Amino acid sequence: MGSLIRSAALDASLCNVTWSDGHTTAFPALWLRDHCGCPDCLHPETHQRLVDTFSLPDDLTPQDPQVADNGRALILTWSPERHSSRYDADLLRRLADGKEPTDPVAKTLWDAATLAEEGLGEVPAEGFLSDDDLLAEALTKLDRRGFLFVEGLDPTPEATQAVARRISYIRETIFGGFWDFTANMEHKDTAYTTLEIGPHTDGTYSFDGPGYQMFHCLAFEGTGGESLLVDGFRVAREIQERAPDLYRVLGEIAVPGQYLDHERGVHLLAKRPVLRHDSDGALIQVSYNNHDRAAFLPDRERLEAFYEGLRLFHRLANDPAFQMIERLAPGRMLIFDNWRTLHGRKAYQGKRRLAGAYINKEDVESRLRVLQLKGAV
Amino acid sequence: MGSLIRSAALDASLCNVTWSDGHTTAFPALWLRDHCGCPDCLHPETHQRLVDTFSLPDDLTPQDPQVADNGRALILTWSPERHSSRYDADLLRRLADGKEPTDPVAKTLWDAATLAEEGLGEVPAEGFLSDDDLLAEALTKLDRRGFLFVEGLDPTPEATQAVARRISYIRETIFGGFWDFTANMEHKDTAYTTLEIGPHTDGTYSFDGPGYQMFHCLAFEGTGGESLLVDGFRVAREIQERAPDLYRVLGEIAVPGQYLDHERGVHLLAKRPVLRHDSDGALIQVSYNNHDRAAFLPDRERLEAFYEGLRLFHRLANDPAFQMIERLAPGRMLIFDNWRTLHGRKAYQGKRRLAGAYINKEDVESRLRVLQLKGAV
Repeated sequence: MGSLIRSAALDASLCNVTWSDGHTTAFPALWLRDHCGCPDCLHPETHQRLVDTFSLPDDLTPQDPQVADNGRALILTWSPERHSSRYDADLLRRLADGKEPTDPVAKTLWDAATLAEEGLGEVPAEGFLSDDDLLAEALTKLDRRGFLFVEGLDPTPEATQAVARRISYIRETIFGGFWDFTANMEHKDTAYTTLEIGPHTDGTYSFDGPGYQMFHCLAFEGTGGESLLVDGFRVAREIQERAPDLYRVLGEIAVPGQYLDHERGVHLLAKRPVLRHDSDGALIQVSYNNHDRAAFLPDRERLEAFYEGLRLFHRLANDPAFQMIERLAPGRMLIFDNWRTLHGRKAYQGKRRLAGAYINKEDVESRLRVLQLKGAV
Repeated sequence: MGSLIRSAALDASLCNVTWSDGHTTAFPALWLRDHCGCPDCLHPETHQRLVDTFSLPDDLTPQDPQVADNGRALILTWSPERHSSRYDADLLRRLADGKEPTDPVAKTLWDAATLAEEGLGEVPAEGFLSDDDLLAEALTKLDRRGFLFVEGLDPTPEATQAVARRISYIRETIFGGFWDFTANMEHKDTAYTTLEIGPHTDGTYSFDGPGYQMFHCLAFEGTGGESLLVDGFRVAREIQERAPDLYRVLGEIAVPGQYLDHERGVHLLAKRPVLRHDSDGALIQVSYNNHDRAAFLPDRERLEAFYEGLRLFHRLANDPAFQMIERLAPGRMLIFDNWRTLHGRKAYQGKRRLAGAYINKEDVESRLRVLQLKGAV
């Protein structure tokens, strides 16, 4: 059930709203006027602000507060303007509580043990591609655990692109957009092994690190080559529990990532802490690639703790107790949250064809937000 | 002239380097080993770290520091490893001073008066497109003032794209990538005016706000329609001088930007302060679009100052003393830094065709960095 307003009263330039749960919020008049939701003040479709915030009269005064629709709305009239504003109680309460238009998906941290118990939660391609409710469910799952397996796709690049387009559009980068990569070792020494790649995140050198990566297996004939995933948020929690001081330093020190290809004229550089937090102190992004870490000298006071923290992070991420190891068979796709989930690959021999693409973090959030507001979740 | 090392001495796990200017830096042994620049430890082309930071011996000890090449290099040998490292003095000093691989371009703040004095500094298309030194000069100019006019392009979409590709690649967004837009009012009431658009920045709803926007005029027959630019950093400085408290609040409060098109399934949301600073307190990004500001309730203590700051920002940005107003004639292109420069447009009547594209901030920085390191600037 939504929030209800019990009463509303004016006090100088404030409108004090008392909620049915007894809590009171003081909304300043200027703010209320600026957030009028009538079609003259807020575009009904785009929700763009139409009211001119900066031309409101200096002596703007709210009058005659009314609780309407059994507490579901607040109505104010404005002087000296002849304007009336109606506010949805639910929206007012969400804003008072600092909430976004939709509630964030609660994240479930995982490790090898919890995954063994809970399973991978694969979703079939068909529903994902055709049913909005199932898409919403799948994207929620992806957000909750930071990865998702889609099963039963055609092993074709067209199918890869269909999945990407179903979610949003493909991100363009220095490497291009959609990729389709075949490593064929059959004509070389069969002893040749395509090397193991340790767990890392992509794009530590990019301001807006790639949000999601897709790995769609189109062909595989050989041995090895399993995909390896690590829940970076789970590793972070482990560090926080074992060594809060190291956690703090990994959250503070901005680490430069670098991508350098002077032949092609590319030299990207971006900086952020291994553990990036929002202004409320919530962990929002893990960035880790020791190969791409650019040269930089942390301050003397924290240098030792920084390296110790990095070492602990590396050790945990490479500990099988924190890893998921899964084979990608043709038609199977792995999508993972590159702001949270580290990925790697076991060494392999043989022929392997993978296709994939990056999708921006903001665009996946956008897609899920729309589905949530539609009531699909 | 570069930095020179006068002497180097070991002190427990530190290597104390004394520079020719008398300054001393204490480099920890672990850090030095981790930053060895030999081809086994650092890939000569990609500069990716090859040394395994986490497998270095616990009893790692630097030995026998040598100043080489008349102070231009430091040489260390390592025990128990049989490894020798050579460090470039210049690079060590840059890292000790917290500098990036290239020096940032000093920004020149501008307003109507300074522009009238200094001119627009247009660059001809030909050199921009064909000569790396001239490209470097132009990108430096763009970085210094936050805008650049390129003159004498073919008035064709191909020419627009050639400029974009000359710098980097076109950013893909929910709107697509390259755009080519014609507004033709000739069949409508000639009194119809394509409305004025006030100064704003694009993409306040995007995590990585568009770095640069290009406006290339392909055709114009009519009156009005001048482009309007404002140096957001100049406005910020004005606010800092007139009202430091408001400056602080505009730098602190994260403002949500929103783009909503539920029909197309898009609902983007991002948050950052109007004046975003880096961890050293330097202003790095201005974000301002009052129409796209999403509903949010700032905390009571700062709400009034927030609106007052917003009002002052709006007033200054709309004050002709802070504006540049320029007509885009066919073949003329305006490129501007959307992290700094607000743009708008005067009302117009007639037919106008513009083409353009966004380029990411990081990709323009990358391009200029490569040109700088090549010595083109």
